[in-house]
Amino acid sequence: MRRVVIALGGNALLRRGEDDTAENMRRSARFAAERIVDIAAAGWEAVVTHGNGPQVGRILLQQEAARGKVAPMPLDICGAESQGQIGYLLQVSIGDVFFERGMERPVASVLTLTRVRPDDPAFRNPTKPVGPYYQKDDARRLEQEQGYAVAQSPDGGWRRVVPSPDPYSIVEAPVIRRLVSDGVVVIASGGGGVPVYEDGPRLTGLEGVVDKDLAAAILAREVEASVLLILTDVDGVYRDYGSDHAELLHELHSNEARSMLDSGAFGEGSMGPKVEAAVRFVEAGGERAVIASLEDAGAALAGDAGTTITT
Amino acid sequence: MRRVVIALGGNALLRRGEDDTAENMRRSARFAAERIVDIAAAGWEAVVTHGNGPQVGRILLQQEAARGKVAPMPLDICGAESQGQIGYLLQVSIGDVFFERGMERPVASVLTLTRVRPDDPAFRNPTKPVGPYYQKDDARRLEQEQGYAVAQSPDGGWRRVVPSPDPYSIVEAPVIRRLVSDGVVVIASGGGGVPVYEDGPRLTGLEGVVDKDLAAAILAREVEASVLLILTDVDGVYRDYGSDHAELLHELHSNEARSMLDSGAFGEGSMGPKVEAAVRFVEAGGERAVIASLEDAGAALAGDAGTTITT
Repeated sequence: MRRVVIALGGNALLRRGEDDTAENMRRSARFAAERIVDIAAAGWEAVVTHGNGPQVGRILLQQEAARGKVAPMPLDICGAESQGQIGYLLQVSIGDVFFERGMERPVASVLTLTRVRPDDPAFRNPTKPVGPYYQKDDARRLEQEQGYAVAQSPDGGWRRVVPSPDPYSIVEAPVIRRLVSDGVVVIASGGGGVPVYEDGPRLTGLEGVVDKDLAAAILAREVEASVLLILTDVDGVYRDYGSDHAELLHELHSNEARSMLDSGAFGEGSMGPKVEAAVRFVEAGGERAVIASLEDAGAALAGDAGTTITT
Repeated sequence: MRRVVIALGGNALLRRGEDDTAENMRRSARFAAERIVDIAAAGWEAVVTHGNGPQVGRILLQQEAARGKVAPMPLDICGAESQGQIGYLLQVSIGDVFFERGMERPVASVLTLTRVRPDDPAFRNPTKPVGPYYQKDDARRLEQEQGYAVAQSPDGGWRRVVPSPDPYSIVEAPVIRRLVSDGVVVIASGGGGVPVYEDGPRLTGLEGVVDKDLAAAILAREVEASVLLILTDVDGVYRDYGSDHAELLHELHSNEARSMLDSGAFGEGSMGPKVEAAVRFVEAGGERAVIASLEDAGAALAGDAGTTITT
């Protein structure tokens, strides 16, 4: 049985510009679920990971609105909440599609923690914006009162920024590996997992956000997947993306991908971390990584769409 | 290896009268974790379930406060969020205590759905209060605008009420059984699990709350536990509770427990569902059920505290 880790973008569940209703989230989850079941039906064991940016942002907005009535929870607890929310929507949708197609496959969501290093330089330089936009004065007040780091967004508003440390290990990987080996479709490492560091014998949660593709690359190695499939809203990795001679790369060697990363070819967008995750996975011994659009998931895994990265 | 399902009350994580801060929740989780590790150290395989009343109530308050900015989620999604939140706090705390005691045991939280019947009479008679208190006029408005059922509480305020249908099966039981057989301490069925009904091939989430002890009784049978341990804030089942001749019952036959239930001996309090769950578990073939205080968990499981119910 071949094994794949499928990484869904946060927008796979809440599309840009769409209202954030439960109905829309269920419809998006259903769309992703059909792609996932296609892959399982083609004979793959699958672990599904997902982003949580839009969802955790909404939880933070709700916390802010109820401050004074309900004590706000730190970001690690909010991340765990979002894993429950998104895991539920995905799990039910995937289960439905299996049943409709006459396939009996158990689906389970496993709450996931991701180990990071407490001396990660990211903790001295928080860069990842989370939660509501503020006026400058309000942002400065939160900085004083709550100890938040705040920064101005390119679009002018102010937001809280948190560290995005580099993951090195998934706490629940042994459990996830066991389940996927038994034929369970496992939803795990949501939002990159809750970042924790080992403090002597203890795991301590941190207020930060782990890049979900980098966490997926670690998870894919630890569950012994042969393929890491990163699904997004563009159809692969482009050379000269955004120019009039942009070219979709069907195959990309990890050395070349690394050069492109080093030369800043992906700018500040979200493609950089995806390529970084793909390169790390294949350099650590993974067979191949594929970056593709969600629509093309099945074809991409078969090598017929998206960008395939190998060593 | 003996196997136990441990049901923690919702107040095990957020004590009555205590501020709802993350710090307090972590301290309470730590206290419960020590009791759970005592049990694992005594040679038990363990599944841990928990209530979610106080936590889901706070999520509903936050949703209400942010209405207009963030679309409120239906109760099934809020329940899943609370499973993530509480599962995380328990999982980290239990893991910490294992490590401190030099024991290596994996701990995992599995998002849980609980099957209920769509024709359950509870759906025609919602009784379980959830979320914020309202003034009568606001409650009536929500009844009109949101289709909520509302009812006046004994203390005078108005609240939304939802159905509390009877559970009959735990969707993830096969996965949970597999993990607990492999030595994993599994946190599952939080808040009784998200209630779902089978609609042809689909599982559809419902706006309701499953009693967490009744769900634990089903789960305990489905994971083949010999003991159901229900932990609460009183030290067992009393005859004539609240009177000056109240008597703690160390042993209770299921027939007698059933008579006490039928005669209304437990009033409207929360002891009734616990005794009901215990009786159902032993009548369905479970070896024994024990109702005890969280403090006495280890002694109760050894038969030295609390009330032991057998057939």
